[in-house]
Amino acid sequence: MDKGNADYVYPSSKENVENAHRVAIPPPQPFFNSLKYNLKETFFPDDPLRLFKNKPASKKFILGLQYVFPIFEWAPRYSFQFLKADLIAGITIASLAIPQGISYAKLANLPPILGLYSSFVPPLVYAIMGSSKDLAVGTVAVASLLIASFLGQEVNYNENPKLYLHLAFTATFFAGVFQASLGLLRLGFIVDFLSHAAIVGFMGGAATVVCLQQLKGILGLEHFTHATDVMSVMHSIFSQTQRWRWESGVLGCGFLFFLLITRYFSKRKPKFFWISAMAPLTSVILGSLLVYLSHAERHGVQVIGYLKKGLNPPSFSDLVFVSPYLTTAIKTGIITGVIAMAEGIAVGRSFAMFKNYHIDGNKEMIAFGMMNIAGSCTSCYLTTGPFSRSAVNFNAGCKTAVSNIVMSMAVMVTLLFLTPLFHYTPLVVLSAIIMAAMLGLIDYEAVIHLFKVDKFDFIVCIGAYVGVVFGSIQIGLVIAISISVLRVLLFVARPRTSVLGNIPNSRIYRNIEHYPNANNVTGVLILKIDAPIYFANASYLRERIARWVEEEEDKLKASEESSLHYVILDMGAVGNIDTSGISMLEEVKKTLDRRELKLVLANPGAEVTKKLDKSKFIENMGQEWIYLTVGEAVTACNFRLHTCEPNPEKAESEPCDNV
Amino acid sequence: MDKGNADYVYPSSKENVENAHRVAIPPPQPFFNSLKYNLKETFFPDDPLRLFKNKPASKKFILGLQYVFPIFEWAPRYSFQFLKADLIAGITIASLAIPQGISYAKLANLPPILGLYSSFVPPLVYAIMGSSKDLAVGTVAVASLLIASFLGQEVNYNENPKLYLHLAFTATFFAGVFQASLGLLRLGFIVDFLSHAAIVGFMGGAATVVCLQQLKGILGLEHFTHATDVMSVMHSIFSQTQRWRWESGVLGCGFLFFLLITRYFSKRKPKFFWISAMAPLTSVILGSLLVYLSHAERHGVQVIGYLKKGLNPPSFSDLVFVSPYLTTAIKTGIITGVIAMAEGIAVGRSFAMFKNYHIDGNKEMIAFGMMNIAGSCTSCYLTTGPFSRSAVNFNAGCKTAVSNIVMSMAVMVTLLFLTPLFHYTPLVVLSAIIMAAMLGLIDYEAVIHLFKVDKFDFIVCIGAYVGVVFGSIQIGLVIAISISVLRVLLFVARPRTSVLGNIPNSRIYRNIEHYPNANNVTGVLILKIDAPIYFANASYLRERIARWVEEEEDKLKASEESSLHYVILDMGAVGNIDTSGISMLEEVKKTLDRRELKLVLANPGAEVTKKLDKSKFIENMGQEWIYLTVGEAVTACNFRLHTCEPNPEKAESEPCDNV
Repeated sequence: MDKGNADYVYPSSKENVENAHRVAIPPPQPFFNSLKYNLKETFFPDDPLRLFKNKPASKKFILGLQYVFPIFEWAPRYSFQFLKADLIAGITIASLAIPQGISYAKLANLPPILGLYSSFVPPLVYAIMGSSKDLAVGTVAVASLLIASFLGQEVNYNENPKLYLHLAFTATFFAGVFQASLGLLRLGFIVDFLSHAAIVGFMGGAATVVCLQQLKGILGLEHFTHATDVMSVMHSIFSQTQRWRWESGVLGCGFLFFLLITRYFSKRKPKFFWISAMAPLTSVILGSLLVYLSHAERHGVQVIGYLKKGLNPPSFSDLVFVSPYLTTAIKTGIITGVIAMAEGIAVGRSFAMFKNYHIDGNKEMIAFGMMNIAGSCTSCYLTTGPFSRSAVNFNAGCKTAVSNIVMSMAVMVTLLFLTPLFHYTPLVVLSAIIMAAMLGLIDYEAVIHLFKVDKFDFIVCIGAYVGVVFGSIQIGLVIAISISVLRVLLFVARPRTSVLGNIPNSRIYRNIEHYPNANNVTGVLILKIDAPIYFANASYLRERIARWVEEEEDKLKASEESSLHYVILDMGAVGNIDTSGISMLEEVKKTLDRRELKLVLANPGAEVTKKLDKSKFIENMGQEWIYLTVGEAVTACNFRLHTCEPNPEKAESEPCDNV
Repeated sequence: MDKGNADYVYPSSKENVENAHRVAIPPPQPFFNSLKYNLKETFFPDDPLRLFKNKPASKKFILGLQYVFPIFEWAPRYSFQFLKADLIAGITIASLAIPQGISYAKLANLPPILGLYSSFVPPLVYAIMGSSKDLAVGTVAVASLLIASFLGQEVNYNENPKLYLHLAFTATFFAGVFQASLGLLRLGFIVDFLSHAAIVGFMGGAATVVCLQQLKGILGLEHFTHATDVMSVMHSIFSQTQRWRWESGVLGCGFLFFLLITRYFSKRKPKFFWISAMAPLTSVILGSLLVYLSHAERHGVQVIGYLKKGLNPPSFSDLVFVSPYLTTAIKTGIITGVIAMAEGIAVGRSFAMFKNYHIDGNKEMIAFGMMNIAGSCTSCYLTTGPFSRSAVNFNAGCKTAVSNIVMSMAVMVTLLFLTPLFHYTPLVVLSAIIMAAMLGLIDYEAVIHLFKVDKFDFIVCIGAYVGVVFGSIQIGLVIAISISVLRVLLFVARPRTSVLGNIPNSRIYRNIEHYPNANNVTGVLILKIDAPIYFANASYLRERIARWVEEEEDKLKASEESSLHYVILDMGAVGNIDTSGISMLEEVKKTLDRRELKLVLANPGAEVTKKLDKSKFIENMGQEWIYLTVGEAVTACNFRLHTCEPNPEKAESEPCDNV
């Protein structure tokens, strides 16, 4: 209320008012130019063609080749130093990939050998086409579980294993096609709609569900529910307590303990990362030896059994394109494809950030897509870049995608010569490996961080978690995406409006709730709108502005100090406006006119100014009522207020408008 | 590039830098306070309880009664002057309501008498509960057509007229329940998601479709397609050219011409509004007389035929709640209810704006809902506040909702005594009345305005129109809503970023594309982000900022003038940030650090500051790097640049950070 302060630096003299800066109407742009700009920003935000500018044709060809196959970019610079590092990293991830591959294939209700096949072909494809240096390719638990859950709804894998297998290949094929098309159509930003919070909740939920599923293996149960929600699983477990096998339980808990303790140790001493990386393979070897020596397979400890020797058989002819289950395969492919891709890209980006290189989301999608299309024709199922394996790869000091090639070779050797060794591997060890991996995915620290920083993100996260754990994976996903999108819509539908006041000894005006020392300006109400003015919020803003004005008038009436003459709208944060928004402003102007108040705009942006000009709103309200800053608007209002002494009973007297 | 200008008013002296205003971390707010505030703004933006504050209980009761039944508010002040005006307006709209009611009932494939019933009960309910003084209640063409189209898909009205009728009542009932619940749950803002542009396109499309349907009546055809798209209708018309009746055609075109000419005349001379208002009734009387005298009904001119005398029979027992068609009825009810309500509320708001009174959307929804629930129990079908009838009411000088009561009484007299007079009314006259009304709804001027002002709105509008005309009403609706929502999402997913420059002779920084005379500041890149930083745009913004920085560095390298040292992000338009956004900023900071650039924030809002503080980002980057205005940030950067002379080869030298 201290008017003096508002004019401390800038007295509202005639000179100051006349020197005020004008809001320019932006230079007109041809429609197609702005359309081109918008399309470019939407689909080519990274401007991939920048590199090709002003280059000779031969150079363009090489650059194009390097763009599609990044291996041509880094291979010429490959050195022996790199090879040594990649060799170590590759062998380390292979030792993790073999048991994990077998475990996840079991999780997807697919033959265990598929897990090994999937660690052979796709990594080779990725090494040629992928742009990440740290991503280790392989199958992932969540996507495996999703495949089991989607396909299991339609086909029983026990009764019709062949159809189930073929549908899994077909789903992988469609996942690849979908991923590659998203990349080619430059629609990579769809993945961005899975917020970080949604992914944390979704992953945590999926990890919980997968852990619960492993109780089947740990307890040595033979019959188990196909549902994934916690209720069904608990019912399934506790309805058959008499069938629990203690041998299996002891073995499982022992290995789980071993895996967790090695991980804990490696986390404390990062130099010994290889201890936790080798632990799964060690467990498999130990477990297999134990079973082989004690013949535990005859005492209720289930083992993997026979694994076919040899490399991936071709499976192109197994893809089913004419089938009543085709839509199921397509649906499964698209959903698992998106989720797997989201994980892979997020992982790739995180490690790229550490090493300060750039990853192109759309290019990665094409690489993932091609790798899955190739995989589906060579008896592999859905692969991506799993976090755990890539982290091991990174820690092991990988330099390029050659570590993927090394892993692939190690798996090839296993497929050719070593599969009989896995005959006695007990399933319970695989369960323990999955559980240990999953427990690391439940990121409770991130959840606490979300709760502290952003309650809405916390709700999204918990919504996804609860949806997955108590409903199903799909329900959790739908909940997470809907709440996330709802938040964006709500932000636009209910934008914040705030009253601005003058920061003492300055010409700066800021939110008086944020800066309690800011002073109101007598006779002037300054409102800031914090979002674009769109159809979704036009009528809300109309009512909200009316309410601010009424409240201010009531307050002034109660204090009997003075009356309101000007309403300044700070448009600095209004990024855009549509025709509904312009009508709203016109209505606000009419309402204010009727109350004998003058509407003043401050700091409209280029887009808004252009549209207000085109719709004749600026002409209608008078360009002299639009100022470049709130400070200048206030100075001008004050000047008019004091020199014209407008009669509050009447509308603004005319001669004063010519300042 | 003119550095001198940037410091023209404010030399970057030590005093100026030290006097810079600090960004305050907003006072902490208890979680439940901010939750309460958010919920209130979302569901009670109009703060309806404000009136009840600090009032005695008896006064509260009266206010509450007046809130639910606005009639108690205005009835005590009702005067004879008002009555005279309302009487004239009421009779005028009755003369329009009777033929329109019969026509629209035919459009919905319902018995014509329902149109009269629907102009009797619902207006009475609205007069008691509605808050608009100008709305005239009645059936509308688009909703009638929608009912025919939805119910017609399931039940043939020729083969099973009784079931069809009962389903129409049930749909009306559910429409009422849905409307009232939306109002009670304060979800009125759902209607706002139908943008103005979408409504223009949708209405235009619906009007086109309804006009095409009327060709059946004008050409005297007996068999006609049930589809509404232009292809089916054209095929239906031109496949039976031999059945066209010239008598019917001549009559129809004559009356259409008469109606259009009277409207044109009334538009030119608003004093003679009653000529166009009376024209439909005149047409009906003339047409009926003509048929009665010439016995044209024997020469292929179809007439309405027998209409039952008497008031609305109760229809509560006709509502079907157990039926295989229940879901159809519910779906029809919800969709037609929303569309009718959107029209009614938009119409009510427009006229309220003219007369400067306020309409509460949620209250109106409850009134519409109650009126339709009451209607469904008294043989009425879906009613709302049609634009044409309300406009006539307004022009006729209505003062309060009493004009609705007068219309209702006039319709009652008609139902009791005058129905036999409509026996000879030719259907072709009704078709002409509908066509004339519909041609007024195709608002091509609005479409031109949309094209000029906002191309995206134009696309929404055309999408809705094309969808309705070439697909179906539902398709048009889905297209319009999806494009509208997509626009909001795209705004957030691809926010505008712009480079700011210094406006000469000031400390103001604005978009250099908007103000081409703005000067770049040497060594400093100032970027403005025009949207909240959310998961949906976090990775886009990361890449876009990186690209701006790269482009600026390339430019400076080419000119060999100087190098980049500071990147200032103007956060003034960033209304909110989520955890994905904060991670993005952290990554941007890391990337800039690695390039030996310093990240500086300017003008973050309350919400953003709070979250950046909670996530320790402010602590991490140093609060001294956050400024209240871009101007102060630039002054500080310049000061450091000149006093410390940082070595561009190394990171910012440490001692200079203690300014």
